[in-house]
Amino acid sequence: MEIMGVKIVVIGGGTGSFTLLRGLKNYTQHITALVSMADDGGSTGQLRDELGVLPPGDVRQCLVALSESPRTRDLFNYRFEDGVLAGHAFGNLFMAALEKMTGSFADAVEEASRVLNIVGHVEPVTLDEVTLVIETPDGAQMRGQYAIKTMNFAEQRPSVRLDPLPTLNPAAKEAIELADIVVIAPGDLYGSLAPALVVPGMSEALNTTKAKKVYVSNLVTKPGQTDGFEVQDFAAEIERFGDFTLDFVLYNEETPSPELIERYAKDKEQPVGIDKVALKAAHYEIKGGQFLSGDFVAYNSSESDPIASTRTLIRHDSDAVARAIMKLYFS
Amino acid sequence: MEIMGVKIVVIGGGTGSFTLLRGLKNYTQHITALVSMADDGGSTGQLRDELGVLPPGDVRQCLVALSESPRTRDLFNYRFEDGVLAGHAFGNLFMAALEKMTGSFADAVEEASRVLNIVGHVEPVTLDEVTLVIETPDGAQMRGQYAIKTMNFAEQRPSVRLDPLPTLNPAAKEAIELADIVVIAPGDLYGSLAPALVVPGMSEALNTTKAKKVYVSNLVTKPGQTDGFEVQDFAAEIERFGDFTLDFVLYNEETPSPELIERYAKDKEQPVGIDKVALKAAHYEIKGGQFLSGDFVAYNSSESDPIASTRTLIRHDSDAVARAIMKLYFS
Repeated sequence: MEIMGVKIVVIGGGTGSFTLLRGLKNYTQHITALVSMADDGGSTGQLRDELGVLPPGDVRQCLVALSESPRTRDLFNYRFEDGVLAGHAFGNLFMAALEKMTGSFADAVEEASRVLNIVGHVEPVTLDEVTLVIETPDGAQMRGQYAIKTMNFAEQRPSVRLDPLPTLNPAAKEAIELADIVVIAPGDLYGSLAPALVVPGMSEALNTTKAKKVYVSNLVTKPGQTDGFEVQDFAAEIERFGDFTLDFVLYNEETPSPELIERYAKDKEQPVGIDKVALKAAHYEIKGGQFLSGDFVAYNSSESDPIASTRTLIRHDSDAVARAIMKLYFS
Repeated sequence: MEIMGVKIVVIGGGTGSFTLLRGLKNYTQHITALVSMADDGGSTGQLRDELGVLPPGDVRQCLVALSESPRTRDLFNYRFEDGVLAGHAFGNLFMAALEKMTGSFADAVEEASRVLNIVGHVEPVTLDEVTLVIETPDGAQMRGQYAIKTMNFAEQRPSVRLDPLPTLNPAAKEAIELADIVVIAPGDLYGSLAPALVVPGMSEALNTTKAKKVYVSNLVTKPGQTDGFEVQDFAAEIERFGDFTLDFVLYNEETPSPELIERYAKDKEQPVGIDKVALKAAHYEIKGGQFLSGDFVAYNSSESDPIASTRTLIRHDSDAVARAIMKLYFS
């Protein structure tokens, strides 16, 4: 049941984008993944520091999600375990080598897209080298995506910017303008989604496009940053950073197992709350669904990568979310 | 002028094999490069030590020589220059990752052959993990290809073996048995050619095949190991290690420029001497030719790799040697 014509843009970075893309690619070939470029931890951070390349990690995950070549896909996600290469995903090295060789990250993404035989396109939100900067109203400031992972905002809502101010990748702008649906993927709100949305030019593109704008709500909260957040709180922050208005919010109505909830509670992470009254009063349309994956295996966890190894196991069901998104096109 | 039917096997490892293969692939598609597996220096040595993989370096060079995809070829030869990756050729990491992922070096070579879109085949002479061991009659012993680079044999002719004793790769055996021509490439006599020839089973294959057996003589001597060697001295050592009889020896009659000779003399390296009387008395047929390349640029030199950076600049002309080899088929 492939609908060739629906043009979908997914904005995000890590696991959330991966999950959505993997599902959506079965329903349309016109997918463009727009990828946050603020990552500076793990293998990606080391390559940025030592080689001066743009961050390959999130781009690699989106490429892998859209790949139709299982073996090359496995190779791109392969992480070395020993020696000086320990923790490096092979695909990160592939893109770093190509960027160094050609001098162009865009060329590296294009070549990786070719060897991975991907459906659709992957585009960095910007091709400029940027550092994520987060400031809370009380004056605390932190720089770098990896550093802010442990930042505690308490009740404050922080400002997010990129330093230096980057330019929106023209290919990203064009994809948004031509899209039928623009999806904000679930993901790390301040470390991944905000850095994609605050790129200058993004707001204008989101306000100009005739596409339906959808946010697929996060499933769990992040301690110190989104404690107590409900679906509408995430949506409000998404709108604040992108300075635009959502048309739809999709949220999960399914309850994770008590064991899984308990396990997350140990890390001070909780399922995102649902306040139906607040949601019904919102200006966007809401769609609840049974969106949890029964498959609890982390797709790319690794002891040797501090980011990958802490990823959650309460996950979206790729196909269920993809179908819910496709349905919006016809509603 | 492609002669589809001529089946050629090239035995060797580094630069010499690279040069011959690059020329021969324009005249036949039936090439098999059999590659010495004793390399343990530079990027390759580090990967062997840290990851426990088989040596990818020489295999990579042969794959690159036979590749029809210029961009992937460049990528495979790309060497990182900074950080912990400094000195690693990307192609080495590619094969190391695939070997770790699949558990099979042969699978890694096959996949690399596919992405590089190569003419013919590349086969390791053995798929066993081995260490090169060299002993001189006076009892000196050294282990490891990188270590023996500086070993001084004086006038003694050393014994060469691999530890533990490996098995000949069945695909290598079959290629020799079916070949029309088997070429021993020029190369490091004790570090690269001998380790390929002393693999148990190699001698039997060379003595069984109906192929014409040809040695393309080295161009320069190696200090401490082949000082004063003339063409027939190299040929005699080749026959001693492979325990077989050569049918042809091709040697270069062209004189390098005085500047280049002087430059090599500083490193105690000299052009290989030609004693026409001795050569005419030999049991093999000799063919002299204008075999020097006018292109003196090292194809893959790198400050960060001790092996690559010391490679010679007196080089064979790929096409001239390839034509001389093809001519033997019709003589």
